[in-house]
Amino acid sequence: MSYELLTSHFRTLSHFQEVAAIVEWDQAVNMPEAAGTGRAEAMATLMSQCHQLLVEPRLEEWLSKAEQQADLGNWERANVAEMRRLVTAALALPSDLVAASTRAEKRSEQAWRRYRAANDYVAFAPYLSEVIKLKQETAAALGQALGCTPYDALLGQFEPGITTALVDRVFNQLRDALPSFTERVIERQQHTPITIPSGPFPVAAQRELGLELMQLVGFSTTAGRLDVSHHPFCGGVPRDVRITTRYDESDFTSSLMGILHESGHAKYEQGLPEAWLHQPVGAARGMVVHESQSLLLEMQVCRSREFLAFAAPLIRKAFPNRVAQQPHAYGVDNLYALYTRVERSLIRVDADEVTYPSHVLLRYDLERALLSGALSVADLPDAWDAGMRELLGLTTAGNDKDGCMQDVHWPCGAFGYFPLYTLGATVAAQLFAAAVGETPELPQLIARGDFGPLNEWLRRMVWSRASSCTLSELLMDATGEDLNAHHLLAHLTRRYGD
Amino acid sequence: MSYELLTSHFRTLSHFQEVAAIVEWDQAVNMPEAAGTGRAEAMATLMSQCHQLLVEPRLEEWLSKAEQQADLGNWERANVAEMRRLVTAALALPSDLVAASTRAEKRSEQAWRRYRAANDYVAFAPYLSEVIKLKQETAAALGQALGCTPYDALLGQFEPGITTALVDRVFNQLRDALPSFTERVIERQQHTPITIPSGPFPVAAQRELGLELMQLVGFSTTAGRLDVSHHPFCGGVPRDVRITTRYDESDFTSSLMGILHESGHAKYEQGLPEAWLHQPVGAARGMVVHESQSLLLEMQVCRSREFLAFAAPLIRKAFPNRVAQQPHAYGVDNLYALYTRVERSLIRVDADEVTYPSHVLLRYDLERALLSGALSVADLPDAWDAGMRELLGLTTAGNDKDGCMQDVHWPCGAFGYFPLYTLGATVAAQLFAAAVGETPELPQLIARGDFGPLNEWLRRMVWSRASSCTLSELLMDATGEDLNAHHLLAHLTRRYGD
Repeated sequence: MSYELLTSHFRTLSHFQEVAAIVEWDQAVNMPEAAGTGRAEAMATLMSQCHQLLVEPRLEEWLSKAEQQADLGNWERANVAEMRRLVTAALALPSDLVAASTRAEKRSEQAWRRYRAANDYVAFAPYLSEVIKLKQETAAALGQALGCTPYDALLGQFEPGITTALVDRVFNQLRDALPSFTERVIERQQHTPITIPSGPFPVAAQRELGLELMQLVGFSTTAGRLDVSHHPFCGGVPRDVRITTRYDESDFTSSLMGILHESGHAKYEQGLPEAWLHQPVGAARGMVVHESQSLLLEMQVCRSREFLAFAAPLIRKAFPNRVAQQPHAYGVDNLYALYTRVERSLIRVDADEVTYPSHVLLRYDLERALLSGALSVADLPDAWDAGMRELLGLTTAGNDKDGCMQDVHWPCGAFGYFPLYTLGATVAAQLFAAAVGETPELPQLIARGDFGPLNEWLRRMVWSRASSCTLSELLMDATGEDLNAHHLLAHLTRRYGD
Repeated sequence: MSYELLTSHFRTLSHFQEVAAIVEWDQAVNMPEAAGTGRAEAMATLMSQCHQLLVEPRLEEWLSKAEQQADLGNWERANVAEMRRLVTAALALPSDLVAASTRAEKRSEQAWRRYRAANDYVAFAPYLSEVIKLKQETAAALGQALGCTPYDALLGQFEPGITTALVDRVFNQLRDALPSFTERVIERQQHTPITIPSGPFPVAAQRELGLELMQLVGFSTTAGRLDVSHHPFCGGVPRDVRITTRYDESDFTSSLMGILHESGHAKYEQGLPEAWLHQPVGAARGMVVHESQSLLLEMQVCRSREFLAFAAPLIRKAFPNRVAQQPHAYGVDNLYALYTRVERSLIRVDADEVTYPSHVLLRYDLERALLSGALSVADLPDAWDAGMRELLGLTTAGNDKDGCMQDVHWPCGAFGYFPLYTLGATVAAQLFAAAVGETPELPQLIARGDFGPLNEWLRRMVWSRASSCTLSELLMDATGEDLNAHHLLAHLTRRYGD
């Protein structure tokens, strides 16, 4: 009985969350300028309603009783555990702290937009300090409620079960291997000739090509859409997944791969089990697993020579006039060279899969130091510059806008998020290696455009499990190993190594 | 104090309503197929939340106290009166009646889609009977709570203050004048040569033209959008008005005029006073005033010779290849003939402004007879046919799909709505006559593309008043007369008469 009361309550919550997801998507894709203020207020009311539903006093009684119910199956028990986790996190934070954080993060994000453009870190620093001070309080309160360290509490908000110990195990492997590896790859690639396809590539043709390929790899357009927004993302709900991209008429490669990346996120959502759609246990596991699905599709599948062999004729068909001018640029060898080019750069979002982890390592080290107080906000630019020199041999001295001010994450309070990108890449490599281990002909199937067996494996091992197990359990069942960086390093060595 | 509690409460309600408006728009414009069931559930939860906010017991105390507050200004008092009206209506209906009606109307609408396509009224009739039975209960309950007749209670849901007595006063004038007038107009137009512009008219060019003209007449694209949906409508919220159209590549005239019609609705919403946006008194008055704004723009302004003289060069610029083939079709005379053609037809939505009122008169008579029990559901097809013969000289015998099954309104319970279309046309003519009375050069200004003076008059007389007065008060202040059909008949005589 208590269990039924809970599922009905959380189904109502999921309805408000669905509405919020569609309105958030709308805000990024459609909303006209004059609507901004009103929409922000309306969304705040909606989010507050979601929060209220999680902190209702009667939930405690229902949860305690449901936790004692002997007649629940595994999924039902996992569902109650997820409910408990959400309620605990919601109750852990005093509402005035939440309100103060929201205000400080909004102010800080606005200041960041202004002062980043002006490369003025000194003016921005007080806003960041305020965000960090409140984030320290938040992390402490969450850690106390969850019985873990403050930073682990932040990590766990995005992917339950992730700890600093686990992150360190993975990151230390990468930290040892990547700097010298990167140097050798870049040295070697200097001898590979590359032809940059020259545009214009009309938006309509790019969109058609993206739509064609995303559906071929398994995105269902009866349960989702492709649109345009300034920052690409994957939003919506499992039966209505909204992915976005932005088109550059002078370069089709970036938007095309962006669409495939978001399609990886989307396929995970579309693959979540029908029966549990409106319950906490039916949601995607966390941001690490989510990112693993987008990076598995992007890095393991779509940047492979096999996939590009399949895609090349479709790309040529999309841009016949361009191909006529530069036939060589659209051959498999050149497309593969384009999509596996490694370059040291200051900007994380432009980074390739070899240098990307270094950007994350830097942020992981610095954000922990900022939160613990070991690093002051005033000293952040120098620490960033020192880290960039060490990890990638680049300097950001006097260029904070491309240094410690380049990302929106810290200004809006997303501490504990950066590690998930590289953990996602790690999980992607580990899962794909296991899938190939089970079906060795996967690469050949991909070269023929047959994504069915891979998708069925992912459905069985990842998507259909939703939040019924932890990331570690998922990995043990799917790959026989807990999370480790071995497969990511092996993948990089195979693709880029000697 | 009570007043402040109320405004804060209704502001929260407006946030949920804003979210609902955007999600409803999304449903019509963007939503993929698989999302339908889930979205309907989410919307039901959201609407239920809005209803809950209106029936909270503590509102009674706040309202009673606010109604006694001596320190409130006119707008504040009108705001409290609007709150009282909304709460009274929400409390009037037992929740099981609301739930039963919603279910019956949903079933009936689905049955209507199926049986209308099959022209099978006998199969559809039981669903309609069920809807009517529940609507009779609803109307009785509302009438009792509001102290009016059941049918007046239904009218008042869409436009407060409208009564059968008022409708009859207007409709009897039309009923007397229109049949013979229509006959003479059609006879006369047979001698006017007309050239149908032949397509194709590319969607992109139609859209550009629509966007250009809608902005020229005063639609602000920083506070709204133009999109595509199967049924054109105006949705969203005042600072984010979403109008839609559908394009036919073989005929640009219908979509273009549709866009201008919806722009009339949109300009009303965009013109509502900033300070009252999230309060009941700040909402558009009702559906009659709303329809008057769309029909004023469409019928009084955009189908006039003056407007078409202004628009013709823009239309020619939009379709240069078509114009080269049929230059005569794009002259002002031919465009005016196209946009003022009068034809007897079975279908209301295809009707011109001369025959449209007859479609409404028929439905007004029949729906009152159905609700009072004077007409049985079984006898509806014959009564429809008899009415069509009398009003327009056409028969629907054996053709119920284009007869009593043609509209979605009754199947989904919208009784009391049809009269508002013709009342809107009546108000539009009355308002425009007053505006021209005050500024006689308005038609010449329109011919030059200067819509500023007309818009400023509408802003002052209609938009800025929102729900602070009744339709009758608004008309007395703006035109010096209460609602009457004289100006509509005068307009029709000027445009179509001898």
